[in-house]
Amino acid sequence: MKAHAETFTIRTRGKGTTEITDKVAHVVRASGIETGAVTVFIQHTSASLIIYENADPSARTDLHEFFDRLVPEDADYFVHTAEGPDDMPSHLRMVLTRTSEVVPVIRGRMTLGTWQGIYLFEHRSAPHTRTIVVSVVGT
Amino acid sequence: MKAHAETFTIRTRGKGTTEITDKVAHVVRASGIETGAVTVFIQHTSASLIIYENADPSARTDLHEFFDRLVPEDADYFVHTAEGPDDMPSHLRMVLTRTSEVVPVIRGRMTLGTWQGIYLFEHRSAPHTRTIVVSVVGT
Amino acid sequence: MKAHAETFTIRTRGKGTTEITDKVAHVVRASGIETGAVTVFIQHTSASLIIYENADPSARTDLHEFFDRLVPEDADYFVHTAEGPDDMPSHLRMVLTRTSEVVPVIRGRMTLGTWQGIYLFEHRSAPHTRTIVVSVVGT
Repeated sequence: MKAHAETFTIRTRGKGTTEITDKVAHVVRASGIETGAVTVFIQHTSASLIIYENADPSARTDLHEFFDRLVPEDADYFVHTAEGPDDMPSHLRMVLTRTSEVVPVIRGRMTLGTWQGIYLFEHRSAPHTRTIVVSVVGT
Repeated sequence: MKAHAETFTIRTRGKGTTEITDKVAHVVRASGIETGAVTVFIQHTSASLIIYENADPSARTDLHEFFDRLVPEDADYFVHTAEGPDDMPSHLRMVLTRTSEVVPVIRGRMTLGTWQGIYLFEHRSAPHTRTIVVSVVGT
Repeated sequence: MKAHAETFTIRTRGKGTTEITDKVAHVVRASGIETGAVTVFIQHTSASLIIYENADPSARTDLHEFFDRLVPEDADYFVHTAEGPDDMPSHLRMVLTRTSEVVPVIRGRMTLGTWQGIYLFEHRSAPHTRTIVVSVVGT
């Protein structure tokens, strides 16, 4: 049995998605674990993680637009407004997606499907530095 | 410490939910692991996983209708339309549910509650063959 | 390699969020595991788990209001109504959030960010006793 964990940061450019698959794959390789699972975790409440289509960028354009409409910035019932109009929608968009993604590891590699990538989903308008923790457990 | 992983496929009949609890339970038993956790992972971006009420089928009827309304097929702002009107909504319904579900294992069994089942949630209109990876880690 | 699992119950006061971070941290400490991951799992289909902002309670007020509006109780298409008007919305609010949350463990502690807490999200109107299973795996 082995367990291995690493932390890295990503600088975002404001709202949108940034692929982090290669960075996670690097930690899996460094772990030397052949069979098990990797947990990817984001230490924030206004950004989140998703596993998403990595082939056609238009699918990510529509994703961003969908979340802008599902959780609008100008909801008149928000009381948590001290940090600006994009803050409360950020928490809600985070809670509708994921704080962690878990992927099995077989023969030393994540078992992602052909079109799957791991993405950091930034919900704030301004650029932020986000911390990601990756933990691999197995044999 | 042990780790054990298996892959299986499910043929769906188009949009809707298919229970896979028994197939996952089979992998947990095969692992011989008594204490730990099992990760269930779907290798697709237009189908997803949920843990859902397994008693009354009407709860699944309402689930399907809810997602059809929350993410309609005819949104006029979609630009990712090359694969048909049900493709982009499939990615969004996936991102609002899960690519993986993780369940603790105690005394060799998943700790699902009485009314909980693990379901594959197919979002495409046409039948598809979906690949599920199950990884168990523990002692 | 070690694996350790414990179960506890939480009495909710009806709809709303209850922080369970300390209870999960207690299980992580009891496990003696230094590096790995902890899985928190709720054994119910009308309550769920989220990792959420733990600083300003107003962010939780807006969260509750948002889910009340996103999944209203009076949808005229619901057929799963035998258990009352708050039952079917509970299943949908559960499926839009999480049944499990997974957090890496480093140096014997969960790697939660400064503003992150683990919350039980009760979706039924009446108080309920909810069972949570915590499983820690690692070295």
